[in-house]
Amino acid sequence: MTNTSSLSRADGRKFNELRKIKITPGFTKHAEGSVLVEFGETRVLCTASAETSVPKWLQGGGKGWVTAEYSMLPRSTHTRISREKATNSGRSQEISRLIARSLRAACDLKALGEKSITVDCDVLQADGGTRTAAITGGFVALALAIAKMKLAGLIPAHAEPLTHYVSAVSVGLKENAALLDLNYEEDSAIGTDLNVVMTHDGRFVELQGTAETVAFSRQELDAALDVATAGCRELFEAQAKVISSYFPSLKI
Amino acid sequence: MTNTSSLSRADGRKFNELRKIKITPGFTKHAEGSVLVEFGETRVLCTASAETSVPKWLQGGGKGWVTAEYSMLPRSTHTRISREKATNSGRSQEISRLIARSLRAACDLKALGEKSITVDCDVLQADGGTRTAAITGGFVALALAIAKMKLAGLIPAHAEPLTHYVSAVSVGLKENAALLDLNYEEDSAIGTDLNVVMTHDGRFVELQGTAETVAFSRQELDAALDVATAGCRELFEAQAKVISSYFPSLKI
Amino acid sequence: MTNTSSLSRADGRKFNELRKIKITPGFTKHAEGSVLVEFGETRVLCTASAETSVPKWLQGGGKGWVTAEYSMLPRSTHTRISREKATNSGRSQEISRLIARSLRAACDLKALGEKSITVDCDVLQADGGTRTAAITGGFVALALAIAKMKLAGLIPAHAEPLTHYVSAVSVGLKENAALLDLNYEEDSAIGTDLNVVMTHDGRFVELQGTAETVAFSRQELDAALDVATAGCRELFEAQAKVISSYFPSLKI
Amino acid sequence: MTNTSSLSRADGRKFNELRKIKITPGFTKHAEGSVLVEFGETRVLCTASAETSVPKWLQGGGKGWVTAEYSMLPRSTHTRISREKATNSGRSQEISRLIARSLRAACDLKALGEKSITVDCDVLQADGGTRTAAITGGFVALALAIAKMKLAGLIPAHAEPLTHYVSAVSVGLKENAALLDLNYEEDSAIGTDLNVVMTHDGRFVELQGTAETVAFSRQELDAALDVATAGCRELFEAQAKVISSYFPSLKI
Amino acid sequence: MTNTSSLSRADGRKFNELRKIKITPGFTKHAEGSVLVEFGETRVLCTASAETSVPKWLQGGGKGWVTAEYSMLPRSTHTRISREKATNSGRSQEISRLIARSLRAACDLKALGEKSITVDCDVLQADGGTRTAAITGGFVALALAIAKMKLAGLIPAHAEPLTHYVSAVSVGLKENAALLDLNYEEDSAIGTDLNVVMTHDGRFVELQGTAETVAFSRQELDAALDVATAGCRELFEAQAKVISSYFPSLKI
Amino acid sequence: MTNTSSLSRADGRKFNELRKIKITPGFTKHAEGSVLVEFGETRVLCTASAETSVPKWLQGGGKGWVTAEYSMLPRSTHTRISREKATNSGRSQEISRLIARSLRAACDLKALGEKSITVDCDVLQADGGTRTAAITGGFVALALAIAKMKLAGLIPAHAEPLTHYVSAVSVGLKENAALLDLNYEEDSAIGTDLNVVMTHDGRFVELQGTAETVAFSRQELDAALDVATAGCRELFEAQAKVISSYFPSLKI
Repeated sequence: MTNTSSLSRADGRKFNELRKIKITPGFTKHAEGSVLVEFGETRVLCTASAETSVPKWLQGGGKGWVTAEYSMLPRSTHTRISREKATNSGRSQEISRLIARSLRAACDLKALGEKSITVDCDVLQADGGTRTAAITGGFVALALAIAKMKLAGLIPAHAEPLTHYVSAVSVGLKENAALLDLNYEEDSAIGTDLNVVMTHDGRFVELQGTAETVAFSRQELDAALDVATAGCRELFEAQAKVISSYFPSLKI
Repeated sequence: MTNTSSLSRADGRKFNELRKIKITPGFTKHAEGSVLVEFGETRVLCTASAETSVPKWLQGGGKGWVTAEYSMLPRSTHTRISREKATNSGRSQEISRLIARSLRAACDLKALGEKSITVDCDVLQADGGTRTAAITGGFVALALAIAKMKLAGLIPAHAEPLTHYVSAVSVGLKENAALLDLNYEEDSAIGTDLNVVMTHDGRFVELQGTAETVAFSRQELDAALDVATAGCRELFEAQAKVISSYFPSLKI
Repeated sequence: MTNTSSLSRADGRKFNELRKIKITPGFTKHAEGSVLVEFGETRVLCTASAETSVPKWLQGGGKGWVTAEYSMLPRSTHTRISREKATNSGRSQEISRLIARSLRAACDLKALGEKSITVDCDVLQADGGTRTAAITGGFVALALAIAKMKLAGLIPAHAEPLTHYVSAVSVGLKENAALLDLNYEEDSAIGTDLNVVMTHDGRFVELQGTAETVAFSRQELDAALDVATAGCRELFEAQAKVISSYFPSLKI
Repeated sequence: MTNTSSLSRADGRKFNELRKIKITPGFTKHAEGSVLVEFGETRVLCTASAETSVPKWLQGGGKGWVTAEYSMLPRSTHTRISREKATNSGRSQEISRLIARSLRAACDLKALGEKSITVDCDVLQADGGTRTAAITGGFVALALAIAKMKLAGLIPAHAEPLTHYVSAVSVGLKENAALLDLNYEEDSAIGTDLNVVMTHDGRFVELQGTAETVAFSRQELDAALDVATAGCRELFEAQAKVISSYFPSLKI
Repeated sequence: MTNTSSLSRADGRKFNELRKIKITPGFTKHAEGSVLVEFGETRVLCTASAETSVPKWLQGGGKGWVTAEYSMLPRSTHTRISREKATNSGRSQEISRLIARSLRAACDLKALGEKSITVDCDVLQADGGTRTAAITGGFVALALAIAKMKLAGLIPAHAEPLTHYVSAVSVGLKENAALLDLNYEEDSAIGTDLNVVMTHDGRFVELQGTAETVAFSRQELDAALDVATAGCRELFEAQAKVISSYFPSLKI
Repeated sequence: MTNTSSLSRADGRKFNELRKIKITPGFTKHAEGSVLVEFGETRVLCTASAETSVPKWLQGGGKGWVTAEYSMLPRSTHTRISREKATNSGRSQEISRLIARSLRAACDLKALGEKSITVDCDVLQADGGTRTAAITGGFVALALAIAKMKLAGLIPAHAEPLTHYVSAVSVGLKENAALLDLNYEEDSAIGTDLNVVMTHDGRFVELQGTAETVAFSRQELDAALDVATAGCRELFEAQAKVISSYFPSLKI
C-alpha cells in the first residue's frame, strides 16, 4: 500500500478525514422525526413518519416494520434529472432498499410492536455520498420518531426498539490509497468505492464494494475497511450529540 | 360586507395581513436560480434549471420556453403522502400548469431565444398557500437564472426576457370577510378561496376562485380582489429586494 | 371599455350572444341520466351513472359523492389525439376535477345519502367551450339520474339532493371587448379567457381566468363577469326545459 | 340440425335476419371519414383519420398503413366500466387488432402510398355485436377517407387503394340452431358464437369461433357459415348505398 | 384444390405431417404441474400453479377457475424482444386469453371446487406454432396439477374436473394447399393460417382463421379443417402417454 | 471462529463445497451466446444478444456496451410470483444492475467497438444463489457471443474484448461458520450472506454483504472471503471447459 498519509486531496482533507458533518434535528415540523444531515455540501432531508399499523403480510405477528424511500430533488445535482428517474430509477430503488435494511438493523422490531416507520430521505443537494449521509441522518430521524412515540405512549416505556446506532460512510480506492467520504469530484475520478454500514459495536450491517473500472485486491479491501471503521466511529459521536439524551442506556 | 377590519385571526394577523415572507436566494448551489421561499411556516424550494434547447414543437421558431413542476415532499404535510401521489396527482399536475402559465406571463419568450427554463417547486413544509408561495418564489428563481444566463452570455446583454414581476396570493372568504394569505388551519375551516396571480402593473394573470361549500357573490369577489391586489404589491417588494439589482430597468 | 355592442363576430353573433344551445335527454339508454349537449358545433355526451355505495373514505358518514370524468374522443378535434392523452393529460384531469367540483355545488350530498354518481363527459366533436358545455350538460344528466333514483326508491321521496341549477360559460377578452361563448376559431385568436360556473341564484361556483398572452385589468374582468352572468341565465332556462318537471320546487 | 326456420327470437326476428342496420355518414365534421353505424341498438362512432406519413418501420417502402382502435365509452354498457379498462383491457386490444387486420384486407397498401389511416371505433351504446358493427362501419369511414384523400390529391386519381368491401357479422349457436347477429340478451344466453369477416367476393378474412361452454361440431360450423355469408351480403348492400358513388369500379 | 399430397415442404414433411412432438413432464420441480412441450424446434415451458382460492368475483359460487399467461423469453426468437413487449403486447395478451379459454373447455369448473389454477406458458425457443404448442402442453400441465391436487386431497377423489382432452394445431393455406403445423420459415412465407383448438370428441373449442394477405374460400377452409382434425388426434395420443394413467376413465 | 470443517450440511456438503455445477452451451439456438447454468437445482437460462449499435449516450465514442436483465419465471419458485414482480421488482432490477456491472468488468469495451451485448438471465428453477449462477453463466454466454462475433467479422480478429474471466458465489455466515454456495433451504435459515464476484486474477469486482438479522464481524468477513475465493476458482475452471478454446490467450 501507498503511504496514504502523505496524499493530498483537492479540498485539503487527509485521506482518513470526514467532511464537515452537521445534523440538524427538527428541520421540518410535521414528521415524528426530522433531520437535515450534511456531509460537506451534500444535504439530505430525512423524515421519519410513524403509523400505528403494519403492512398486511406482518399483521398479527406482533412485530413492527421500518422502511425507507430515497429520492433526489430534480435539481439537487449538476444537471436536472426527471422526477420519474429521481424516484423510480433502479439506482434510487436500490438505495431505498439499502437504507431500509440498514435501519432495520438498528431496531428490535418485536419491541416496536405493530407499528410502522417510514423514513424518507430526500436529497436537497448532492455532492457525493448521498446514500451514506441518508443512512446516517435517517438513523437519527428514526431514533427521534421512536423517542416521540414513547413519549406519546404509542410504545411502552420499558420497550427498547432501538438496539444499535447505525451509520454509514464511503471509501474510495485510488492508486492503492483508501480515501474516506468521497465528495462528488473525487467520486467521479475514482472508479472503485466501498459503502460500509456499521453498528456502534463495530460490526458490519452492509458492505457494498463496486469496481467500475479496475477490480480491487484483498489488501486494498482491508485498508478501506480500516478507514471506514474509524469514520463510522466519528459519525456515531455526531449522532449521539442529538439523540443520546433520549436513549441513555444505549452507549456508543 | 362585514367590517373586516375588526375580525381576529387565530395567529393574531389582521384580515389583510400577509404571513412573514422570507425569500432566501442561493439556497442550493447547482441550479442556475435557487430560492427558498417562506410564507410563514410554508416553505418551498424553488430551483430554475436552464437548458440551451427547446422542446421539439418549438424548435426553429426563435422562441424560448418556461415550464414548471410542483411536488410535495412525502412528509411535508400532516400525514405522509405517497411519492406517486405527491407528484402525479391531478392536484399536483394542475398546480404545475398554473405555475408555468404564471411564470410565462413574466417573460418575453422571444427575447429569451431558443432556451428552456424549468422551475421546480418542491414543498419542504406545507402550511397552506403552497401554490402561491411557489409562484412568488419560482418567479425569483426564474429571474436569478435569467440574470445568470445573461452573465454567461447565453442571452445577449441587450435582450430583456423578463418583462414583469409576477406574484401570487390566496384570499379566503368567510362570513362575508376576505382574509389574506390563509394558513392551513384557516384554509381547512374556510370552504371558499381565491388564488390570484398578478403582474406588477396591477393586472391579473390568473384568477382561480373555488367554492367548495357555498358559492360566492359578486360583492364578495370584489372585496377579495381588493385585498389580493394589496397583498401582491407587498410581495413584489419582497421579490425586488432580491432581484432588482439585476434588472434595474424593471421598476415595480 | 370599447362599445362592445358594435363588434362583429365571424359567425355573426353579437358580443353577448350564446351559440345555438341544444340539450337532448335520453341520448343513450343504459345510463341513469344521459344527455347530448350542443353549444353550436361542440357536442358532448354526458352520462350519469349511479351506484349504491360510496368510496371508502366516505363510508359510514351518511353522505353521498358526485364525481366526473372528462375525455375527448380521438378525432373529436382537428388533428387526432391519442387516447392516452385524451384521457390522462394534465388538461383532461384538470377539467374532470373542475366539472366534479361544479356538480357537487349543485347538490346536498347528505340528502343524497350513501350513493355515488359518476358523470362522464365525452366530447364527440370539439369546437371551443367543451368544458363549459360539459358542466352545463353534465348537470342535466346528474339531475335526470337523481330523478330516476327517486322514482326507483333509492332516494327517499322527501329528500332533495338537488339544491341548485349549475351552468357554465366562457368569455373571451379581446381588445377590451368581452365575447360570450367562444368557438374554436375565436378561442385560438384570443389569448385571455374566463370560465365562469354559476348557480341559478347568481353566485359563483368557479371562476377561472387565464391570460395566455396579455394580463387583464380589473375593468375587463368586470365586463366579462357581466356578460357571463347573463349567459348563464339563458343556460338555466335551457336546462329547466328538460328537468323542471322533475324538480318543481327548484325555481330558477 | 334443427329446422332453424321455425325458431322464434325474443325480438321477433327470424334466425337469419339482421337487426335494423343504419349507416350515417358525416356524423362528426373533423375526421376525413366519419360514420355512425347502428346494428339495432348497438351504436358505434367510426372515424378515419388520415396522415401523410407512415410508422417508422414502414418508411421508404412505398406502402401505406391502416390501423384501428376500439374502445367503449364508460357508460355505453349496463354497468359503468372504467376508462382504463374500456381502452386497454385485453379484450379491447384484441378487438382493435381484429378490426385493423380486417380493414387492411380491404386495401391495396401499395396503391395507398406512404400514408396512414387510423380508424377509431368508439362504442356509444352497446347491445351485442359491437366488434362486427365496428368493422362494418369502420370500412365505410375508411372508404370515405380514401375518397376525400383522392379528391384532395393526396392519392393519385388512377390509384385504387380500396380493393374490396369488407363487412362482419356474428352468428350464435344454440340448440343446433345458427342465429344471425346476436343482440346482448341473446349473446348472454348463448355460449358459443362465431364472428365472421368477409370480402364482397365471398371469401373469409377472419373467422373467430369461441365455445365458452360447449364445443361445436363441424356440422354446426357449416350452418353458421351459411347464415353469416348471407348476412354479410346484406351488409355490403348497406355499405354500398353510402360509398358506391365514390368507387364506381368496385362492384359488390 | 391442388393435390396436396404431392407438395414438398422445406423440412421434408408431408402436407399433413406434424413436426416431432415431445412432451416432457416434471421439467421443473416447484409447480404442481410442469411440462416442456416441443413441436419441432419450438419449445415451451408450461407450469400449472394451484391455489386454494378463487378471484373475488367467483367467491361463494362453488366454482373454480383456470387462467393462463403466455410470454416469450426475450431471446426465444430471431431478434431480441423487450420483456415489456414479450409479456404485455396485444399479441401476448390475446394468446393468453386464447389459452385460458381453451383450457377451461377441458374442465368442469364446478367439479374443481373453489380452487384456481394458473397455467404459465413461457416460450424458451420459438420456431412457429408457439400458441398451439402452449395449449397442447398447457393442457398436460393442467392435468398433472389436477392429478396432484386429487392425491393431496384438495379435490375429492370422486370429482372429475377434467372432462376433455384439449389440443391445438395450426394449418397454413398456400396455393390452395393446407399444410399442417407450420414452422417459422413456412409461417413467414404463408399469409393465411388457421389455429384450431379441439376436444378429443372431435368438436371445436376455438377456431381462428386470419388472412394476412389473401382471403380464403369456403373450400380452402374445409380442407384445412380436415387436416387439423387429424393433427389434433395425433396430439391427443401424445398427451395420453403422459396423463392417461391418472385419468383412466377419460378415453380419447 | 468455529472449526468449520466439522460442520455438517443438510445435503451432505462440506462447508467449502460448491453444489454440482453444470454449464450447457447452446441450450437455445437463436442467441449469439446461450447457456443453461446449473448450481445444484438452481437453473438459469443465460442468452447473450449482440447488436451492431450502442445506446445514444455512447454513440461516436468508439466504445461498446454490455448490459443484463434478470428475471424469474413465475413458477420458478415455491409459490407463484406475478410477472410484473418477477421482472420489475426492486430486487430484480438490483440484480440486473449487479450482473451488468460484473460482466462489464470482464470486458475491454473499447476493444468491443460500437456494439452492444445484452445478457438475459431467466431463472427457470430457483433453489438459492440465482444471482451468482446468473453471473457465472452469463459470463459464458457473453464469451460465446464475443467468439461468434469475431468469427462473423463483427469484431476484428486482433481485438480482445474479453480481458478477464468473471464468476460469482455466495457465502453464508452461520454460528461463526462460513458456508459456500447456499441452497434455498440454507439461505432461509441463515440471516447473513455475502455475494462475491471475482476476476480470475483473484481480485474483487463486487462485494455485497447483507446482515438481515445479526451484523457480522471483521473476522467473520475474512473467513467468508477465503471460502469465496476458493469457490470462484473452481467456477473459473468450469467456465474454461466451455470457452477456453475460443480464447486461448486468456489463461485462468
